[in-house]
Amino acid sequence: MFMGRGITVLNLMSSPGSGKTALIERTLADLPGDRRIGVIVGDLATENDARRIRDQGVHAIQISTGTACHLDAHMVHHALEELDLASIDLLFIENVGNLVCPASFDLGEEARVVIIAVTEGEDKPLKYPVIFHDADLVIVNKIDLAEAVAYSHEEVVANIRQVAPAAEVIELSALTGTGMDAWFRWLERSAAKGVRAPP
Amino acid sequence: MFMGRGITVLNLMSSPGSGKTALIERTLADLPGDRRIGVIVGDLATENDARRIRDQGVHAIQISTGTACHLDAHMVHHALEELDLASIDLLFIENVGNLVCPASFDLGEEARVVIIAVTEGEDKPLKYPVIFHDADLVIVNKIDLAEAVAYSHEEVVANIRQVAPAAEVIELSALTGTGMDAWFRWLERSAAKGVRAPP
Repeated sequence: MFMGRGITVLNLMSSPGSGKTALIERTLADLPGDRRIGVIVGDLATENDARRIRDQGVHAIQISTGTACHLDAHMVHHALEELDLASIDLLFIENVGNLVCPASFDLGEEARVVIIAVTEGEDKPLKYPVIFHDADLVIVNKIDLAEAVAYSHEEVVANIRQVAPAAEVIELSALTGTGMDAWFRWLERSAAKGVRAPP
Repeated sequence: MFMGRGITVLNLMSSPGSGKTALIERTLADLPGDRRIGVIVGDLATENDARRIRDQGVHAIQISTGTACHLDAHMVHHALEELDLASIDLLFIENVGNLVCPASFDLGEEARVVIIAVTEGEDKPLKYPVIFHDADLVIVNKIDLAEAVAYSHEEVVANIRQVAPAAEVIELSALTGTGMDAWFRWLERSAAKGVRAPP
């Protein structure tokens, strides 16, 4: 359905607090060009994230999962009833903050983006291999805190390579804007031609 | 069974990378007195955490959950077969890094400790209310990074109060040792009398 309408859909997954919403906010503010963006946000509770995104004038649908640790295609399908699909060509789906459960659910996305923060430690790809294995892109966020936590670029990249040899890796800070240009280029490439071959 | 043997069991739960293992390491190194401690560690994959703890000469059992996003009592029961229960009086169970699933599983613990890091944002108690609701203690870790991330003590405490009015709150840094004394006092109190009334 997304393909038929020419909508590029990205499934953003991470631990709680890695900066998914901040990344979307910064992207909405700074992405060059005229992409028409919609956002679906999953959380156990609160409308906080959708509210943050609506504050930027973008249509955002909040899915409250209650006790479910992930989004699924059925939840997304219902959220789409509230979204004017003719008015968007790029859809961010911000999954529930969780490095385990979301990995098992296909939301109809074109690509999977897994976000980690430098503050979480370099070993996360090895300890949560399932979600990293299927990532098309791994974003390492909060690079502005790299020095404060003695972050090792080499170690993170080596660990990602072990479980996701083909994934691209971009380091950035959604707070300061450092590295966002590489993410924007990746986004444009994905939106222009799709990162996965059609079925 | 734990009660009959006089073993105080704590269930430590947090997001990936909040510092559960670091907290246990620091506790093993610095806890005053002569508590005899055992550790069970849950992860989807790797023996990394158990290895870190064994490096300190403490018996640690690693449970590899595969794709399961939490520990359950059955897994813990099997892990106990490898642990000499007569030789310990305090057992740390480090759950899988996840702020959702572990909340629903009783591991036979005396108390539940939920750990968040200042780097994860102040809104986490509101967005993951189920796990905070049953917490006896909330530890806010990485307080050494408080200034770098403009952490708000007042906001976090207010948010915890909303979903867990009775939980104690301790701010500390497992890295620098700041605030560990309050955690040690809480531990001794729990081990001495138990924080929950016997059934």
